Amino acid sequence: MFFPKVTILGVGLIGSSVALAMKKRRLCGHITGFGRREERLMRAKDLGIVDSFDLDPSRASLGSDFVLFSMPVGFFPRIAGMIRDSLKEGAVVSDAGSIKGSLVHEMEKALSNKTPFVGAHPIAGSEQSGVDAADADLFEKRRCVITPTDKTDRTALDTLTELWRSLGAEVVIMTPEEHDRVFGAVSHLPHIIAYALMNSADELNHSYLAYAGQGFLDTTRIAASSPEVWRDICMGNKENLIQFLDTFMGRLERVKGYLAGSDAASLEGEFSKAKTLRDECGQD
Amino acid sequence: MFFPKVTILGVGLIGSSVALAMKKRRLCGHITGFGRREERLMRAKDLGIVDSFDLDPSRASLGSDFVLFSMPVGFFPRIAGMIRDSLKEGAVVSDAGSIKGSLVHEMEKALSNKTPFVGAHPIAGSEQSGVDAADADLFEKRRCVITPTDKTDRTALDTLTELWRSLGAEVVIMTPEEHDRVFGAVSHLPHIIAYALMNSADELNHSYLAYAGQGFLDTTRIAASSPEVWRDICMGNKENLIQFLDTFMGRLERVKGYLAGSDAASLEGEFSKAKTLRDECGQD
Repeated sequence: MFFPKVTILGVGLIGSSVALAMKKRRLCGHITGFGRREERLMRAKDLGIVDSFDLDPSRASLGSDFVLFSMPVGFFPRIAGMIRDSLKEGAVVSDAGSIKGSLVHEMEKALSNKTPFVGAHPIAGSEQSGVDAADADLFEKRRCVITPTDKTDRTALDTLTELWRSLGAEVVIMTPEEHDRVFGAVSHLPHIIAYALMNSADELNHSYLAYAGQGFLDTTRIAASSPEVWRDICMGNKENLIQFLDTFMGRLERVKGYLAGSDAASLEGEFSKAKTLRDECGQD
Repeated sequence: MFFPKVTILGVGLIGSSVALAMKKRRLCGHITGFGRREERLMRAKDLGIVDSFDLDPSRASLGSDFVLFSMPVGFFPRIAGMIRDSLKEGAVVSDAGSIKGSLVHEMEKALSNKTPFVGAHPIAGSEQSGVDAADADLFEKRRCVITPTDKTDRTALDTLTELWRSLGAEVVIMTPEEHDRVFGAVSHLPHIIAYALMNSADELNHSYLAYAGQGFLDTTRIAASSPEVWRDICMGNKENLIQFLDTFMGRLERVKGYLAGSDAASLEGEFSKAKTLRDECGQD
């Protein structure tokens, strides 16, 4: 597998790491970057992550064999419309977005049948972001979820699967809808919770934050994540998240009831159940 | 400062670490341990954490110069009543409990004026627990909150302050009530949230937990904490926690409203505010 020309639309942590990972494994020739900020693109070029860059996404995508959307997901459909007519026939278009559901269907509509879109979500990254955190081995031994639909081109799906396996990832296939429920529960909901806990502690009394210990810091670590990225993810998965927030608040109401009713045994039962589940997840 | 005889009531992580820390700094002679499980006390003796142990708390406390309550806080008042008449006049009695508020007043009532009680809460420990995790330097550069009341004996307060400073801690003085609001917000509330998030993800679909990534694991790390310990802490601080849960759910309702109303700008504002606060807390 070899892609003579690759375009990375968004040179953040994930896009830059894909570029480095492909270069390291000699899976591509020339890489062009697109982004909103020239300064960041210049930094990516200086670091050897991209070979050239363009502030116009359609020019950046011209003649590419593989185009990766790795900017905040809220920009995807508009940029897809902008590059649609400059894409080479047979180019594989994919993404690294944290939501899939309706987004995959929007992307299929925005792009032509001649340039097949296959949605993907590499489960990697951290609260770190940006081109300077890029890592050629970021995807080693991590999962990458690929989300075909009944419209997905099978050759493009096979190519993308092979690409992610070559980058060291374990490929998992899900429907876009299943993906959004799974990651709504284990990723998007925890982000909303971490952000809300930070704001709640501040609302109660800003000075209390000086006493934050390791537990608080762990629980809120992902509240340092990019607000722009998470705005788009949460908006893109809002139906699930509204439902999941109700489930979560239901568990909190249950705890409140045990506290109000001095029901220590039920409270301990609730905590024990959670501890058993958490212990099964491992200590990482 | 030297305590010829010390009694540790509860040889978990904190009690065992205080014992090791005092021994290492030659602040005490003989240490006796009390606990509910003989097996654990024998382990503490084998590890050189205590010199002897007794399954009867009043015998364990007989003739001691310093008595430390370091079991789950729900047991404190009953054990205080059991040891009251066997304590030596002038013995300093303290604790390492994570709640103070009403507990300190209960302890003052349960004990005699001749054996002054001074409440303390060393801010140390982790989701690890038990005698095998004991560490003589656990309190180095950590805070210890001491919570005197208008009834607190000033000499005992000075002694306890000097002891914690000798163990490497930075001593902070607060009222018991102020302590419970501060730690309710930055410690007890996050524990309830972590437990509830684990149970929510399981309620949504147990199989989703296989996709838990680093963010989920960080956010739920403290859900591995002892259910018994946290049952007592939360019950002991329930008035604050009921109020804090309402504040927290208010922030979640706000987010839900932004999602339902597709108000991306307000959602980003909420996340940005939280990120700024979290960045100020540092990366630990």
